[in-house]
Amino acid sequence: MATDADRIADELRAALDGPWREVREKAREHLDDERLYGDPYLDYKAARARVLDQMHLVSTFGWAEKGFKLGHGGGNDPGAAVTALEMLAYTDLSLWVKCGVQWGLFGGAVENLGTERHTPYIEQLITLDLLGCFAMTETGHGSDVANLETTATYDPATQEFVVHSPTPSARKDYIGGAAEHARMAAVFAQLITGGEGRGVHCFLVPIRDEQGNDLPGVTTSDDGLKGGLPGVDNGRIVFDQVRIPRENLLNRYADVDPDGTYSSEIENPSRRFFTTLGTLVRGRVSVGGAAAAGARVALSIAVRYAEQRRQFADPDTGEETVLLDYRSHQRRLLPLVARSYALAFAQNDLVRRMHLVQTGQDQDPSAQRALEKRAAGFKVAQTRHATRAIQECREACGGAGYLTENRLVTLKADTDVFTTFEGDNVVLTQLVAKELLTAYSDEVRDLDALGWVRFAATMARDRVREHSGVRQLIQRLRDRSDETVDDADLSRRDVQLALFADREDYLVRTAGHRLQARAKETGPFEAFNNAQDHILMAGTAHIDRLVLEAFIEGIAAIEDPEARELADRVCDLYVYTTIEENQAWYIMHRFMSAERAKAVRRGVNELVDRLRPQATTLIAGMGVPENMLHAAMLNPA
Amino acid sequence: MATDADRIADELRAALDGPWREVREKAREHLDDERLYGDPYLDYKAARARVLDQMHLVSTFGWAEKGFKLGHGGGNDPGAAVTALEMLAYTDLSLWVKCGVQWGLFGGAVENLGTERHTPYIEQLITLDLLGCFAMTETGHGSDVANLETTATYDPATQEFVVHSPTPSARKDYIGGAAEHARMAAVFAQLITGGEGRGVHCFLVPIRDEQGNDLPGVTTSDDGLKGGLPGVDNGRIVFDQVRIPRENLLNRYADVDPDGTYSSEIENPSRRFFTTLGTLVRGRVSVGGAAAAGARVALSIAVRYAEQRRQFADPDTGEETVLLDYRSHQRRLLPLVARSYALAFAQNDLVRRMHLVQTGQDQDPSAQRALEKRAAGFKVAQTRHATRAIQECREACGGAGYLTENRLVTLKADTDVFTTFEGDNVVLTQLVAKELLTAYSDEVRDLDALGWVRFAATMARDRVREHSGVRQLIQRLRDRSDETVDDADLSRRDVQLALFADREDYLVRTAGHRLQARAKETGPFEAFNNAQDHILMAGTAHIDRLVLEAFIEGIAAIEDPEARELADRVCDLYVYTTIEENQAWYIMHRFMSAERAKAVRRGVNELVDRLRPQATTLIAGMGVPENMLHAAMLNPA
Repeated sequence: MATDADRIADELRAALDGPWREVREKAREHLDDERLYGDPYLDYKAARARVLDQMHLVSTFGWAEKGFKLGHGGGNDPGAAVTALEMLAYTDLSLWVKCGVQWGLFGGAVENLGTERHTPYIEQLITLDLLGCFAMTETGHGSDVANLETTATYDPATQEFVVHSPTPSARKDYIGGAAEHARMAAVFAQLITGGEGRGVHCFLVPIRDEQGNDLPGVTTSDDGLKGGLPGVDNGRIVFDQVRIPRENLLNRYADVDPDGTYSSEIENPSRRFFTTLGTLVRGRVSVGGAAAAGARVALSIAVRYAEQRRQFADPDTGEETVLLDYRSHQRRLLPLVARSYALAFAQNDLVRRMHLVQTGQDQDPSAQRALEKRAAGFKVAQTRHATRAIQECREACGGAGYLTENRLVTLKADTDVFTTFEGDNVVLTQLVAKELLTAYSDEVRDLDALGWVRFAATMARDRVREHSGVRQLIQRLRDRSDETVDDADLSRRDVQLALFADREDYLVRTAGHRLQARAKETGPFEAFNNAQDHILMAGTAHIDRLVLEAFIEGIAAIEDPEARELADRVCDLYVYTTIEENQAWYIMHRFMSAERAKAVRRGVNELVDRLRPQATTLIAGMGVPENMLHAAMLNPA
Repeated sequence: MATDADRIADELRAALDGPWREVREKAREHLDDERLYGDPYLDYKAARARVLDQMHLVSTFGWAEKGFKLGHGGGNDPGAAVTALEMLAYTDLSLWVKCGVQWGLFGGAVENLGTERHTPYIEQLITLDLLGCFAMTETGHGSDVANLETTATYDPATQEFVVHSPTPSARKDYIGGAAEHARMAAVFAQLITGGEGRGVHCFLVPIRDEQGNDLPGVTTSDDGLKGGLPGVDNGRIVFDQVRIPRENLLNRYADVDPDGTYSSEIENPSRRFFTTLGTLVRGRVSVGGAAAAGARVALSIAVRYAEQRRQFADPDTGEETVLLDYRSHQRRLLPLVARSYALAFAQNDLVRRMHLVQTGQDQDPSAQRALEKRAAGFKVAQTRHATRAIQECREACGGAGYLTENRLVTLKADTDVFTTFEGDNVVLTQLVAKELLTAYSDEVRDLDALGWVRFAATMARDRVREHSGVRQLIQRLRDRSDETVDDADLSRRDVQLALFADREDYLVRTAGHRLQARAKETGPFEAFNNAQDHILMAGTAHIDRLVLEAFIEGIAAIEDPEARELADRVCDLYVYTTIEENQAWYIMHRFMSAERAKAVRRGVNELVDRLRPQATTLIAGMGVPENMLHAAMLNPA
């Protein structure tokens, strides 16, 4: 018989499952299959082979094609594709990465940067008849993609591009699939025609024959063991004058005629570059989602363990105390659960926005760019959260947490690189801040590297907070909160939102002023560098506010009053702990009195006390099925 | 030709090498040997075999015997033993753990808890003719050692103890050496004689024959893969009525006569238990030292990489900028370098104190207990630092940081359990705070579990800060700082020390009051639990102060003025970042104005700016030889 707690958990899970709920439910059935879990005892060569087999199994689920257009054999449902693949993070992250590389990165490049002539590749890559890799990063350049060194020089005599690695640092590196499985690479390289460089473009380069041997001029090698993800065959590629047909340029935004004439509908080279990268936003959306999913698995394990593990007797009762009854344990885990809720709602909202943009339902010209900023910000928030949460879970489970059979160390090792790939978190936070500081001016995007600093410094006006995509509820809350915040009730949602927004506004405005003051005296690098910590804080504050707004909107959609009440308390805990982490800032900048800051600390304690009895309900609501936890200690013999 | 920078680095290294400098220098020679490094490509079975071979090599260095008494074939130089073994952390932490288990934990138990009749074992364990393990932790009890379930029941008929695991949770677990190599276990079990329980004692129990087979009644099993430390064979042991001779009780503090009569020179059972555990302090001292050594290796790698890796061009010069020129990168790494310096001095001081107590040169009756508190506190500080610093280093090196060939992920995985073993960090921080709250009262130690809360709550008096072991310099600085701190110059060492001490005093005093107020209304568990976060903060504040004092004393011993000046700035950075991390607390409790707190943030920026040109000197001063870094990316082809 279902209890109240079960019903509340079901309601929460339905809310967190979000717009593609059926996809998640179906995935829970598909993934209840031992064949889809990793085996930590395999060596990395065997793990790679196993994951390749598992990919073939996943390819039968019908998930991959959802992400492609109808005419390409797809389902034109990118939201469903991202959501379904995210669920793979509950089984094995090596498998998730391999699928993401194949269908998301490689497939996404062909789909979004290619044209009709490349459609046959899409059909083959969906079915895994063509295994590909995404060869963007080089040994020398990762974050700074615009300055990749690989060249693709057009030769009109043969109507071919000559792909070449001119220096050791031009070597493609860390490329998933390059070590063993990929037959073709989507290679990002500087296009040169008629002796003129045209910037980074993407080319399809066959790298291996059917027997797996490197093709002439191609030298692949193996990155070997990594911190985790043993089933992913990351590797390196060096090109020595490799010739490919002219048609292998993915020519959606630019093309080269047989005679070598370059043309593009986007005149400005920088804008062309950012448009190219912008189409690949799905990768960032997906990484954030998978990281958050990994954190949910870890928290499900650690909280369930904390409900059964006992240590030290209560002297009054003689009974040993379960770990989750300790205040310190509650404070370790429950705020992370609250943040997981927040981020789950944020991710659902992000995927929904991505889906609307990518299916053409959102035609707002600023939507694509707002999506990119949001995807970058949420990728940072979710991967940072995963790194921190999984580490805390490991430690909170003590020695048992260190055994591979309890899965936490594997989650930690596998997700560790998520803060780096698809954009280093520091660089992405800067990107978010840059967009805020320059209020989305188109001119800015066209500026190289730090050119935007000069621009930001010349903007005398205060910036206007970006309202695009904000829905009624948030607007109403914003409108309500014009009292002096310090005197207002911190448990009120509008006051909380105002505190988040005030921090963001103040940081963005003062960062702008600081750049302005400095740039008169020094060059842009000095001006930027001197304010870098400030700029990063502004970016983080913006992300925090967007996450809170998504959380609030997510709760509003819950109809069951008890489930909504519980979610509201979880939201309070997210708000209070976020404020607690920034309380020095709030006090120093007079947004909060010292007394109120002490009340925040007490508030966190009260909230963990209050939520503690419902911890198991909250975990069930996060939606990782118990049979997918795979932690031996939860089922002792 | 040696430059000034080289000379300064040498001076710093000499200071950080501490009292056993020659031991470290000699170790650097011994460890310049490829045979002593791990091979991450070995599977865990092969890694264990390799580490066992490496132990035999280490046993030829003459380090192990230094830790034992002269009459036992030792050198009576525990400081040298701990220091030398710590250096192994520069090569491979699996090897360090295995050596630590054999000579430190197993050897330490026999040495410190045994008597003359056990001396032959010591001779054999030094040479590795007897491989042992330290069987304390059980599946059900780790932190709460007093309530271990394994029993050792005396049978006068045969003059034997019967060692038994009465429940599944009584199984010994996570025991290094239990899975494969150990022939004998030092087993902690409840001694029962004449039907009466006498508390936890330690027994030598043979577990395997020469062929490696379990002896009758003993069932060992394997913990299998862990997050790291693949070369350590952690395992489980279950005892089914295993009989051992009466003489196998390690009988230094208690004995059982042939007829079963129990006797001990320590009447009070709780005090006997704590005396027993107290002799094992060397384990905690060693774990902290090895964790900090691991962090130094990681920081040496990450800072050197940040000096060579370039990304993004400065628009004014067109030159790509090295990572360490970015403010955010400086703020990520340099404060961690500063903390490494602080902890290195703290560890040297701790080892010196341990050496004086264990060789009988310090006869102060309170010295042993003060040593235990300090060892617990520094174990927490160093392992927490290692977890955080190595993670930051991994992320700061991007994708390269994730490759095993660059070592950071191995350091992370291997040190991850250091926050857990030899005492969970939360439990140890509580232990430190408990000692502070009850001002070392002997009565308190005898109280079970949370009984001390009642005691702490009845102490109406404010506590007096413990001055034992504080030397003149610190006392002089303390005496100087009686001005109002908020108006004083934060760059003055006495003012800094006062800020650290004020935070500690305030937190300890108010935690005491809070316990007092609560304990009248609730039981001790409620009172304790309600204040647990406060209690933990008090413990941390105490540790921070002790570390700062050790840093100040360490600097005072540097004679070269330029090296001392540099170390002074590093100390400032340690102080400023520690205050920055706690600035909300300082402002809320009126120890610092909002304006001064902002100045602290600016001060951190100024200090990282100022130290940045000397980053390589600071890394060289940390004393990890470049040829021991073993990170491929530092020597690109």
